[in-house]
Parts: sequence; C-alpha cells; structure tokens
Amino acid sequence: MKIVIAPDSFKESLTALEVAHAIEAGFKQVFPDAKYVKIPMADGGEGTVQALVDATKGNIVRTSVKGPLHAQVDSFYGILGDGETAVIEMAAASGLHLIDESEKDAKLTCSYGTGQLINDALDKGIRKFVIGLGGSATNDGGAGMLTALGAVLTDSNGKQIPAGGIHLHRLNHIDQTNIHPQLSRATFLVACDVSNPLCGDYGASAVFGSQKGASKTDIAELDKNLLHFGQKLEAVSKKTIVNFSGSGAAGGMGASLLAICNAQLQSGIELVTSTLDLADKVKNADLVITGEGRIDGQSVFGKTPVGVAKVAKQHDCAVIAISGSVTDDYDVVFQHGIDAVFPIISEPCSLSEALAKGAINIKRTAFNIANTLKLNN
Amino acid sequence: MKIVIAPDSFKESLTALEVAHAIEAGFKQVFPDAKYVKIPMADGGEGTVQALVDATKGNIVRTSVKGPLHAQVDSFYGILGDGETAVIEMAAASGLHLIDESEKDAKLTCSYGTGQLINDALDKGIRKFVIGLGGSATNDGGAGMLTALGAVLTDSNGKQIPAGGIHLHRLNHIDQTNIHPQLSRATFLVACDVSNPLCGDYGASAVFGSQKGASKTDIAELDKNLLHFGQKLEAVSKKTIVNFSGSGAAGGMGASLLAICNAQLQSGIELVTSTLDLADKVKNADLVITGEGRIDGQSVFGKTPVGVAKVAKQHDCAVIAISGSVTDDYDVVFQHGIDAVFPIISEPCSLSEALAKGAINIKRTAFNIANTLKLNN
Repeated sequence: MKIVIAPDSFKESLTALEVAHAIEAGFKQVFPDAKYVKIPMADGGEGTVQALVDATKGNIVRTSVKGPLHAQVDSFYGILGDGETAVIEMAAASGLHLIDESEKDAKLTCSYGTGQLINDALDKGIRKFVIGLGGSATNDGGAGMLTALGAVLTDSNGKQIPAGGIHLHRLNHIDQTNIHPQLSRATFLVACDVSNPLCGDYGASAVFGSQKGASKTDIAELDKNLLHFGQKLEAVSKKTIVNFSGSGAAGGMGASLLAICNAQLQSGIELVTSTLDLADKVKNADLVITGEGRIDGQSVFGKTPVGVAKVAKQHDCAVIAISGSVTDDYDVVFQHGIDAVFPIISEPCSLSEALAKGAINIKRTAFNIANTLKLNN
Repeated sequence: MKIVIAPDSFKESLTALEVAHAIEAGFKQVFPDAKYVKIPMADGGEGTVQALVDATKGNIVRTSVKGPLHAQVDSFYGILGDGETAVIEMAAASGLHLIDESEKDAKLTCSYGTGQLINDALDKGIRKFVIGLGGSATNDGGAGMLTALGAVLTDSNGKQIPAGGIHLHRLNHIDQTNIHPQLSRATFLVACDVSNPLCGDYGASAVFGSQKGASKTDIAELDKNLLHFGQKLEAVSKKTIVNFSGSGAAGGMGASLLAICNAQLQSGIELVTSTLDLADKVKNADLVITGEGRIDGQSVFGKTPVGVAKVAKQHDCAVIAISGSVTDDYDVVFQHGIDAVFPIISEPCSLSEALAKGAINIKRTAFNIANTLKLNN
C-alpha cells in the first residue's frame, strides 16, 4: 500500500512537514508496512518557502533586507534541493506583518527588500525563481524591487524619485543600464491567486489599498500613480501590463515582475504541485492524505487540500483531508475531489489550546482514520 | 448492509435517540440503501429511562413525589413498550440535583420518593422493575423507600422513626404488614456499577457521604446507623446484606432493594444491553456505531460505548464510536472492542457552543466516517 501525505501547514501550530510527520505517525500505528511519501505542501502563501525547502531537502537562506518602511528586517528565502531554484515569499521582506498597525502607510511602503532577496539569489548563481505574492504592505507597483535590482527610476530632471507609490507620478524614465546582469537569464514563476488588474475599480489600490492604510484620497492618488507607472512599464517592455490579469497583485508588484522580470503568473497551488511533481508521486498511490488548519467554503479557491485533490483525482486516488477546524459551509470541497474531512479537535477549547495540541490531535485523527480504513481490509 | 446505531445520550445536548437520528442522517447521505437499526442506549445512569422508553417505544409517566428533603418534586419513570416493565432512575425522585448545594444534608435526606414511583407502577399492574441507582442525595439505606412502600419502621416504643439516616439507630422493628401487596410478586433488576458494601471504610457513608454534605462526624454516625439498619434487614430477610457487594450503592438503597425487594444487582450497561436484546440485533450487522458525550480512560468501566462494543465483538462486528470529546487517555477503549473513535467538534469553541451544535456535528462526523468506509467498497 502506498500512501501519499501532502498537507499544508497548520498556521501558527505546525509546518507542513510537521503535519505530515504527525499523520504518518498515526497511520503507521495501523499500517506499519505501507509505503509513505510525505510531501509538505503550500498554496503560494505563507509557509511556501518552508514547505518547498522541506519537500525538496533544500535550505533556508537568512539575510537582512530593507523592510517595507526601510528599516532593516530579518528576512529569508529558500533554495530548493536542486540547488538551482530560489523560492521567495514577498511578505518575508515587504510584508504587512513586518510593520506595526500604526505604521501602515500604503503611500510610502516599498518593495525594495524583495528585490534584495532576488539580488542575493542571483549573486549565488540562482536563475530559477518561484515568487509567492500575498501579504504585502506595499502599493508601489514593485518599483522598490526594480530599484534594488539596479534599475534607476528618475524624474524629468534625471533625479532619482523617492521610494513609495505616492511618488510614482514623478517618474519619467526607467533606466535599466545597471540592472543585475543575470536578471535577463533568470525565469520567474509567480504564485498569484488574484486576477486584479493594476488599476481601476478592481486594481491594486482600490481593492487592497485600505487594508494597507490608504485613505480614500490616498487610493485615488495611488491608483493614478500606478496607471502612470504601468504605462511606463508597458513602454519599456512592449507588453500589456496595466490591464493584465494579476498585474495588480501585491500592490502592483505583479506589474513589475511581468514587465521587467519576464514572469509567468500561475495559481499558487498549481505552481507548488507542479514544482513538487505531485502528479508523478500520487500516480500509484492507494490513498492521499491532505490537510490544512481550516477547511471552509473558501477552500475551493486555490487552497492546498483542494489543489492536492485535483491532482489525485486525475489518478483516481482517494483523498482524505484532516483539518484543524471545519466550518458549516465546508462541504463544497466534496465537489472538488475530497472524499472525507476530519477535524482534529478533541474537546471544547480555546484557539491557543487547539494550536498547542496540533500534533497530538492530528496523530490521533490519522490513527482513527486508518483504523476505519482497515475495517474493510 | 445492516448498520446498528446504538449510542448513549450526549449529556446536556441530545438524548440517545436524537444522537442515533443524527448518526443515521449522516450515514444515509452515503449509504441510502443500508438497513439501519437505531437502539438508543444508556448505562443505567442518567438518561436510562429516556433511552429504554425510546428504544422500546414505551412511554414516560410523570408524577409528583416527595423529594430528598420532603418537598414535592416533579418526577417521572418509564413504562417500556412491552407494557410490563417500569424503568426508574432513583435520581429522578431522590437525586442530588433536586436540592440546592446549600441544602445538601446526608443526615436527613430520604429515599421516600423513589418508593412512591415504585408504588405508582405497582398500582398500574407493573411487576417488572429496572431501577437505575446513582446520583442520589440520600444516605438512608433505602429506609424512606421502604416506608413509601408501606413498611413501618418503629423504635423500641413502637413509635415510627423519623426520615433520614441519622435516625436509623433508633430502629427496633421493620413491620411489613402493610407493605404493598404486589411487591412480593415483582422482580427488580437494579443497575449498579459500584461494589461498595453497606458499611465500613468502603461503605456508602465513608465513600459517598461527603459529596452528599456529610461531615466526618456525620459519616461515622451514619455508618454506624447503616450497620444497625443492615443487621435488621439481614434479620428480616435472612440474607447477607451488610457485606454484600453493591449494598452500599445509592446511600445504602442497594441494601433495602436486596433485602425487601428481592432485587438482583447488575452492571448498568449489561442490564440495558440485555433488556434491549442488543446481542440479537447486532448478530447480522456489518457495522455498529456507538457513542457518548465523552470518551476517556474511564469509559472502560461500564460506559455505553465499551458495553456495546463488548456485545458487538461477540458477533465479530466492527465498532466505531462518535464522541463529543475525547481525552488523551481515551485509547484504552481500543482494548475493549472499539475500532475507531471520532470526536465531533468542528472548531475551537466553548462547552456551551459545542453542546448547541451537537446534532449538526454528529451528522457531519457520521457522514465523513461513511465516506471513508465507502472508499474501500
């Protein structure tokens, strides 16, 4: 019997690898001789670097970069086991969680640190990039990232414009002369689960600006600035940027990645399943166990369990999900390839108690699922 | 496929029948054509009347009796579907829950109301009794019950002694002249899961007295009084009473039932499984689903899921338990015939939230168990 264990992390409780270990431990009590393949998963969001590094036996690179408001922050990215691919979560350098609630300022936040991470990996000889967007504090269209990579953004006087989306209206020229010489040889796969264009009513500023601290007036100005910036990016890249689906992701970071880094945008979970070659691994499996901290009605929109189930069902494989919690509207996942869902909580408890007992509860649940499967064997 | 559904109640949330309905509803979504046999269960404790009445399509008789401290209380007992058997929970007439915490007084509480319930059923022509002990407020050796049934307990002056264990030292004679004329034709099966003798260090007063409000001094006196009462019961019945295992149950009620009512004491769950003929019903079952509000290390001591599993395993039947909660030491139940245990809680919550969501959580859990079983079919 071959059992593939491919869960996401249980956020604030266990990494995807730790979840996989707990599931395996429970199953092994019942099926000690089965072949277990553990594939820590992610959906392109938080935990993607850790999962891909764990899954490929790669390593984490820790470094210090400029945070969203220019103060230095401890950051990291991953180099996969192939030694050729870097995986970066934008939020690890330019994330909203890196600044205090009171500091949020979509006008001035800047994606420079994310560019520094890319630089660092380029310097190490990395030419393949996987970039997870999401959780960003920025609304600068990725201008900061481009600056870190060596581009010089100048005004009509040839003077470099300051960081922050609020200054982009002054941009006259994007000088790529000193951009990192290896950038053009690199490929970028970008995990992106939003289809927002750069500007307009569904653009980066209008939809995500307020959660990053922008007022209504700020949003109007930022939106206008991103349009101006996007048009400049279109001019240098000869590509459709402003209205491209996903260019508005991560405060418009999608736009710069598309224009200057020749990026391909992809659904996060699909990017991860293809990077980890999940399809090949589930091919002969008798069962796939997946899971996530929470399974709800939104799980069908790019979340790991449903993404794993999609691949598993292409190979007619049974899929059981283990989750920290389930909501009343969880059952839509049954239309997306999941056969059964089991929450793990053992008794009435607070969230913090549930988080603390994650491993023991997952193991117990896996054990009882295995016992149930064994009844028919 | 035949599926027997035999759960206990989920205390403070659902009756055993309601639990059985929820399990059936979940399973039917997956196996609509299976044959379902619902047997609401109990273990002789709270919920036993409701479960046996529901299981046999009997009825509940509501009546008013003297409570533990003589004030009238609303009480009830059940008449099973056979029309010949009454089932009584002693606590429904003489239970600790019927008086305030501040009123607890093991010296004066009295089992008279339980005797009134028996009287009422005898008057209706009932000759078979199932009595559940447990939860009593009393320490009177069942003297109150005997009084209600028509016995007269007198002192050496021929004067009736007052109610309450504290007065039993004055007992000189038990006059059965006016006892209910049908009592001698009745049989009593008594659900009793304690093996305490009437007196001594493991007797009713020493072990259960303090939870009924007795001080250390009270306990010594009550114990001496129960010894005196037990010796009188031995004299009139010509039976071993004082040291009989279980005679100390329910404040010594076991003693009076043994001596005067010709009772047989039995484990509560075994009494219920035999009354409901569970063995016959699981004989050809493919699966038994049981459950209880909580499954823990104590579940192996006479609780419903393990009692059901014991019967099921005599017929090689798979047993899955659904529970409101499980504790870390729950796994001892696997040594007692249970194959898998699934708690039902969907997310971190308070006890009251969990109790309110009992039915929906049970149904969801049953549905997912069924989905898992179906994977192998």
